[in-house]
Amino acid sequence: MGADIQKGTLGNIMDIIYERKPFYYETDRMGIIHHSNYIRWFEEARIYYMEQMGYPYRRIEDEGIIIPVTNVDCNYKSMTRFGETVLIRVWLSKYNGAIFHCDYEVTDKETGTLRATGHSEHCFLDENGKVCVLKRNNPEAHEAFKNSLNK
Amino acid sequence: MGADIQKGTLGNIMDIIYERKPFYYETDRMGIIHHSNYIRWFEEARIYYMEQMGYPYRRIEDEGIIIPVTNVDCNYKSMTRFGETVLIRVWLSKYNGAIFHCDYEVTDKETGTLRATGHSEHCFLDENGKVCVLKRNNPEAHEAFKNSLNK
Amino acid sequence: MGADIQKGTLGNIMDIIYERKPFYYETDRMGIIHHSNYIRWFEEARIYYMEQMGYPYRRIEDEGIIIPVTNVDCNYKSMTRFGETVLIRVWLSKYNGAIFHCDYEVTDKETGTLRATGHSEHCFLDENGKVCVLKRNNPEAHEAFKNSLNK
Amino acid sequence: MGADIQKGTLGNIMDIIYERKPFYYETDRMGIIHHSNYIRWFEEARIYYMEQMGYPYRRIEDEGIIIPVTNVDCNYKSMTRFGETVLIRVWLSKYNGAIFHCDYEVTDKETGTLRATGHSEHCFLDENGKVCVLKRNNPEAHEAFKNSLNK
Repeated sequence: MGADIQKGTLGNIMDIIYERKPFYYETDRMGIIHHSNYIRWFEEARIYYMEQMGYPYRRIEDEGIIIPVTNVDCNYKSMTRFGETVLIRVWLSKYNGAIFHCDYEVTDKETGTLRATGHSEHCFLDENGKVCVLKRNNPEAHEAFKNSLNK
Repeated sequence: MGADIQKGTLGNIMDIIYERKPFYYETDRMGIIHHSNYIRWFEEARIYYMEQMGYPYRRIEDEGIIIPVTNVDCNYKSMTRFGETVLIRVWLSKYNGAIFHCDYEVTDKETGTLRATGHSEHCFLDENGKVCVLKRNNPEAHEAFKNSLNK
Repeated sequence: MGADIQKGTLGNIMDIIYERKPFYYETDRMGIIHHSNYIRWFEEARIYYMEQMGYPYRRIEDEGIIIPVTNVDCNYKSMTRFGETVLIRVWLSKYNGAIFHCDYEVTDKETGTLRATGHSEHCFLDENGKVCVLKRNNPEAHEAFKNSLNK
Repeated sequence: MGADIQKGTLGNIMDIIYERKPFYYETDRMGIIHHSNYIRWFEEARIYYMEQMGYPYRRIEDEGIIIPVTNVDCNYKSMTRFGETVLIRVWLSKYNGAIFHCDYEVTDKETGTLRATGHSEHCFLDENGKVCVLKRNNPEAHEAFKNSLNK
């Protein structure tokens, strides 16, 4: 695996590249990576992103906030095979203090071929499972999100 | 688990209800079913659907055609917990001989609460991995799809 | 799927048969069910077993006891393919008030061919994560386990 | 993630350390990594091992040989939590030209606490699914295995 920051290309938005080697158990009998794993890779990339923006997911959970997915989609462009490596570019495409969106772009590391694009949406819940405004409930995490959007 | 056909409600389109008991290993540390599993449930429901329409997925693969997912999305409305049972309504929302779409609605069996809605898109590939027109490559499977759309 | 009790054959020990249709996403690029899924099937069968013995896993967790796996093994005899159905026989092979063991036998439903045998070991932890004696902490659950061993 | 070779400690047997950061979707509602994932981690470590011994798994499959698991077991010593990193030491404990065994040791990277030990057994199948002797069917791969055992 190995996950490295590479120079982003999105101007004043922070984007991160997460590198991932598909696992054998992620293949299916078509001989390709099963499509459901991309949704999991998005989560891996998103968690890696939060680490890079200086506010690890684990920390925000320890502080009593969970971040469910409210929407996810993935558009598959070409197939990934076992033995290849993918690069997942991930960035925060929206954040308003209460919700955020992430976008994803999966490419083959060697050829640059686009494998998939994706998008996910999230809100914040407090310890009672109630929707909360990050800006109020956790100002420091709020700053980290805000700064990633306007680097 | 147990998967039963229940009377559809979509008029002249065939819809099927697939019943599923979430597994313990599908939960995550938020105490809920991890969102990625819904994408897998959609596949289970879709494969069950093809069985009910009289053309099992296994058969179409044995006849040399695979059916990749080209797009999938899921909109999460409420959380599923271990111990609950979900009903997944699935139906063919589009089919034109070359591609098809499925739609999904996940509800809690006991309360009827909506858990999620989803949508997936698919094409057909022949043994060389080339996009093919089902109508031409497998007329019998084509009829099965067509009839599900116009029951 | 569908999970039915079938008459056990183990004399005075309660054994249960859990029926399971492998999912497409459980296959791998060898064209067979990936071996790691058997470990998950064992859990499904074990949870179904507890339901049948009258003490659902969910209930025991709600009462503050979790049941980690301390050991698991699986011996693979033949391969399961997508489109087949397996029967998983499961029984409590040991219970002493503090720990329990389960044994598993996976066969092909149609041919009876043995697919795998397995074994798992478990203890009980209280809410503080401390090992506890079920007999003392939850006498009713203790009775349910004991009775399954000596039907 | 990131997977680095670290100096082995097993004398004349080659051992490799595979580093892995558990994923959020690998947790369960006990708040720990679900036990079934260790079986998958073993596979990741084994495939990484073959890469390090100079004969990647992908290559041996491309040459017409698949390597099923015939036996796997895992002994769980302590729990892994999200946010931690594990080191998986893996080595070839037996190889005789026809079958091989691997052993595994999972420890917490930070504290060195033992998380689990494991063992897996494997044979080789040719393109017709028949058991084959690697020594005869693929002498170069045979050398790679032999050399790992007697470094």
